[in-house]
Amino acid sequence: MAAHDAVEVILAKRDQHELTDSQIDWVIDAYTRGEVADEQMSALAMAILLNGMNRSEISRWTAAMIASGERMDFSTLSRPTADKHSTGGVGDKITLPLAPLVAACGVAVPQLSGRGLGHTGGTLDKLESIPGWRAALSNEEMFTILEDVGAVICAAGDGLAPADKKLYALRDVTGTVEAIPLIASSIMSKKIAEGTGALVLDVKVGSGAFMKDLTTARELAETMVALGTDAGVRTVALLTDMATPLGRTAGNAVEVQESVDVLAGGGPTDVVELTLALAREMLAGAGRGDVDPADKLADGSAMDAWKAMIRAQGGDPDAALPQAKESHVVTAPTSGTLTRLDAMAVGMAAWRLGAGRARKEDPVQAGAGVVWHARPGDAVTEGEPLFTLLTDEPERFDRALASLEGGYDITDGAEFTPGDIVLDRIGG
Amino acid sequence: MAAHDAVEVILAKRDQHELTDSQIDWVIDAYTRGEVADEQMSALAMAILLNGMNRSEISRWTAAMIASGERMDFSTLSRPTADKHSTGGVGDKITLPLAPLVAACGVAVPQLSGRGLGHTGGTLDKLESIPGWRAALSNEEMFTILEDVGAVICAAGDGLAPADKKLYALRDVTGTVEAIPLIASSIMSKKIAEGTGALVLDVKVGSGAFMKDLTTARELAETMVALGTDAGVRTVALLTDMATPLGRTAGNAVEVQESVDVLAGGGPTDVVELTLALAREMLAGAGRGDVDPADKLADGSAMDAWKAMIRAQGGDPDAALPQAKESHVVTAPTSGTLTRLDAMAVGMAAWRLGAGRARKEDPVQAGAGVVWHARPGDAVTEGEPLFTLLTDEPERFDRALASLEGGYDITDGAEFTPGDIVLDRIGG
Repeated sequence: MAAHDAVEVILAKRDQHELTDSQIDWVIDAYTRGEVADEQMSALAMAILLNGMNRSEISRWTAAMIASGERMDFSTLSRPTADKHSTGGVGDKITLPLAPLVAACGVAVPQLSGRGLGHTGGTLDKLESIPGWRAALSNEEMFTILEDVGAVICAAGDGLAPADKKLYALRDVTGTVEAIPLIASSIMSKKIAEGTGALVLDVKVGSGAFMKDLTTARELAETMVALGTDAGVRTVALLTDMATPLGRTAGNAVEVQESVDVLAGGGPTDVVELTLALAREMLAGAGRGDVDPADKLADGSAMDAWKAMIRAQGGDPDAALPQAKESHVVTAPTSGTLTRLDAMAVGMAAWRLGAGRARKEDPVQAGAGVVWHARPGDAVTEGEPLFTLLTDEPERFDRALASLEGGYDITDGAEFTPGDIVLDRIGG
Repeated sequence: MAAHDAVEVILAKRDQHELTDSQIDWVIDAYTRGEVADEQMSALAMAILLNGMNRSEISRWTAAMIASGERMDFSTLSRPTADKHSTGGVGDKITLPLAPLVAACGVAVPQLSGRGLGHTGGTLDKLESIPGWRAALSNEEMFTILEDVGAVICAAGDGLAPADKKLYALRDVTGTVEAIPLIASSIMSKKIAEGTGALVLDVKVGSGAFMKDLTTARELAETMVALGTDAGVRTVALLTDMATPLGRTAGNAVEVQESVDVLAGGGPTDVVELTLALAREMLAGAGRGDVDPADKLADGSAMDAWKAMIRAQGGDPDAALPQAKESHVVTAPTSGTLTRLDAMAVGMAAWRLGAGRARKEDPVQAGAGVVWHARPGDAVTEGEPLFTLLTDEPERFDRALASLEGGYDITDGAEFTPGDIVLDRIGG
């Protein structure tokens, strides 16, 4: 590998030049090895945030992050693979019903997930509320479960894109999170290294999402689809609404329960709709567009795959889920139609109740969360329950209630039809 | 002091907001204390470099850096004070004759200097070639010498603007040196903390200077003059030519000898001219515009002040200066007029001969350097000496010769008049 110098690379991007392949390969490798210091990488990250990277730079940056670690290979599996990534939203439990549903359709889902930080929950945190279930698997265990069950949701090992792990932690404390080239390469380096054949991106847009507006979300989606395509992964992105939280619950055990309801053929319509939309994209990407996932929800085979998947990771899918020690009901202050329910307000409330963490090392409460008894478009009656807040620590109620304040509108006599969940589709 | 958060301050500047006084005070203080990490400050420095700071932000940033350490006070001295700062150039020995000259005119010069890094030499490195001379003085010694001799050139103590010291080292490795707000506040925080009543800035422009073009140099000069003025220091700036190196020597002992020549009434005309121009500005700023410094060169009183100043710091002004062990003469390849002598080429050659250092901890050679036997406008004859290269380590000649290649033009029969040294004057 050609030798470069950290300052040379920083100056190039600072002065709006295109980074060369050799500079990118060197800086990612040298940063992973500790030769490029954190204070140098953060200056480079800020220069990238402010001056941008073009498609070829982002593609090489992603490739260099993949090259910093191991790359998984599922090509010897007996079925095709497809995966989904969501940029994170409130009440976004979709991975839980989706992975076993797609597995039930004959496509393997190797889902490497993360834990939540801030107001959006983490898939692993949710699953860990199931008694016995464990997130950590060896690559061999993962392969075996994929072959036997068809779906696995587990923690990404340290071997995958270690440069990304280090850079992500750095960006978090240096004001350099919101750079589309860095967000896109962070997500895609892990997904490409994971070795999936097809990938569907669920890019959330709205108050409860990282991307607040459609323009920025579309730019991120297009960047990621291009990266996946360049790397030979069949990639599409759906832009989906996150102004309103998904389903009727935000938390851990409460979201597992809602997912089980969906797998049982019920559940909130928006969760069902989005799960099916994403499943159809994954199946199409994996060459199984002929299978209708709705059939697999209806005939119970998705539920069977769920139970097998949970059992394969030590969990008891029939055990009672943990419940919060304390609850507090918020009643509707007036009668009318619920015309707005703000995802960020709900997400912050769930976080403050203990469902999420402020720092990586914090624990989460399995039972904590928010249940909302109406969705936008529903009629509500003064004095009837609007929210139920759940936590083990009642001193958390006050701050959670403060988060909800101003987070919804009830309008007397309003006609209101909620908008579509899927706002746009990129790629394919 | 109000509590802030490093990421909050970084995001504000990243997103092109004006930093508040409170944010600036906090971030400089917290960085000095180590609460703001290097990787956070480097991201902020890059955001400042790319998004800028307005006059009020720069002024507050400078004040916060001054407040990070002690502030000297020379108001009890029996005479007024004036100081000079140069942004650094090749062959720039001006401080050496200037400080005793101004002292001989009745104005005290408290000159806190630095060491050289890269192709521009350091004043302290030059003076340390005088046997016995020491750069480190206590504040009390400094005060006594100023009262007795009127001029002192010494190392800045650790107590002055420690935030700047830490930030300067960080900028050096993170590609954030070339930010006018940061350059200006770095220079001015030290000069204002030093407690001088008047200040003249020698802002160099040209190939051998940090500022390559007049527009950027003027912007830096105007920024620094505004900062000095805001802090109650009578400040002016001269923009001076650094396309051509100053005088006839670049190195350490060779520049001391040239300075002594000037103090003895001789020396290269450009060095004399710039020394007098800066002296007149310093005297005017200190309220002694009635004194003509040319008289003090002519009557030997400047030389007396030089000897007293060197003796006061343990040096022997009459001792022989160190000489390089090896020399190499470059002869003129053709006859004609020297129409160009590039300051950067000469500076790099002197540096490569051992006169300067690549890293802070490197030693310098007292005898190393370059002597040029013609200045632009002079006639040269084929085969006659054009440069003499000096070093203790003859293996350095090759790389120094490579630096000089293409660094000068000799034109047959050309009429050539060198331009003015002082290009512009700002402030006052």
